[in-house]
Amino acid sequence: MTAKPPWMIAPGTPWKVVEAREVYDNPWISLTEYDAIAPTGRPALYGAVRFKNLALAILPLHDDGAVTLVGQHRFPIPGYSWELPEGGGPLGVDPLESARRELREEAGLEAADWREVLRFQLSNSITDERGYGYLATGLSPVAAEPDETEALALARVPFRQALDAALAGHILDMLTLAMLLRAYHMAREGALPSALAKAMLN
Amino acid sequence: MTAKPPWMIAPGTPWKVVEAREVYDNPWISLTEYDAIAPTGRPALYGAVRFKNLALAILPLHDDGAVTLVGQHRFPIPGYSWELPEGGGPLGVDPLESARRELREEAGLEAADWREVLRFQLSNSITDERGYGYLATGLSPVAAEPDETEALALARVPFRQALDAALAGHILDMLTLAMLLRAYHMAREGALPSALAKAMLN
Repeated sequence: MTAKPPWMIAPGTPWKVVEAREVYDNPWISLTEYDAIAPTGRPALYGAVRFKNLALAILPLHDDGAVTLVGQHRFPIPGYSWELPEGGGPLGVDPLESARRELREEAGLEAADWREVLRFQLSNSITDERGYGYLATGLSPVAAEPDETEALALARVPFRQALDAALAGHILDMLTLAMLLRAYHMAREGALPSALAKAMLN
Repeated sequence: MTAKPPWMIAPGTPWKVVEAREVYDNPWISLTEYDAIAPTGRPALYGAVRFKNLALAILPLHDDGAVTLVGQHRFPIPGYSWELPEGGGPLGVDPLESARRELREEAGLEAADWREVLRFQLSNSITDERGYGYLATGLSPVAAEPDETEALALARVPFRQALDAALAGHILDMLTLAMLLRAYHMAREGALPSALAKAMLN
């Protein structure tokens, strides 16, 4: 792992909590309102949402350079969403195990090789949602098992077509955008087998 | 703009709302709990968080291939966070105007050239947070004006060093990760002036 560069020191004072009020709780999130003191010393109200699951994204990359995408209606967002296979992994469970399950359930795929290629926080201002992105290769089909609220469509698409559609604004899901760009970076930087990289970038 | 590929049809039924209960509201977010019907026909409880601001990220790219990063303590997340200049743009305000303001306030920079290079939704499961990423070039210094809760550090870093630090896990902020990868993609795909691309990739 690359060492942390010396300019990445952590100066100053963190936020301080004066009072916390629990507002809401369900099996997936909780919301707490805080009276806080900002690093500048100024009092501030803060409503923070805590997540009970990790956000996991899997890029299933086939030997011919295609990727498998999943289409579905998402609740919080208008319109239909094409994305990588994604899902929540309970905190305290190995995220790779949760990712294997999501790939099997949503895409009907198993992978011989898994690489963690992205580690992220999704919202810096309101939520603490964080997660991992995995590149899955050596794919083979298994029976898909979507959960009881998921009606999923599947598409097997050339990598370049998926990336172009995403950058044209047809895919808005940030995990998908970031993972496609990360895979592009890996293909260009020699981090993938050259035949696979060539098939992706064609 | 690339046309939407034909496989991106929107089959099936969207989610239906049976009942909505307002739970929480502050100047930045609201939380509503829903009794809903999933696309599969199954009843489901849903707690959804609505955002009152767009998420905006600006990649300030200097002529020598360096980028300006901002360091700060974020409330919802433990530890110190290095990021691109970012901030909230009120819904109903031109996001580019909000991005110009954020770049000036946080980084003390003005840009002659602005390009929207990423359009995204940050959470597909709980929130409707969405936003835009801009590449800002032709930079010149102005007085920084952080708001009353922001204590910011600034660093001017070679692009490659920022990208490597991010991919090594030293930068977790997803907007920053995605925007650095997007700029890498642009540099590699001939979407930037060749001298600038060369300086970034060195």
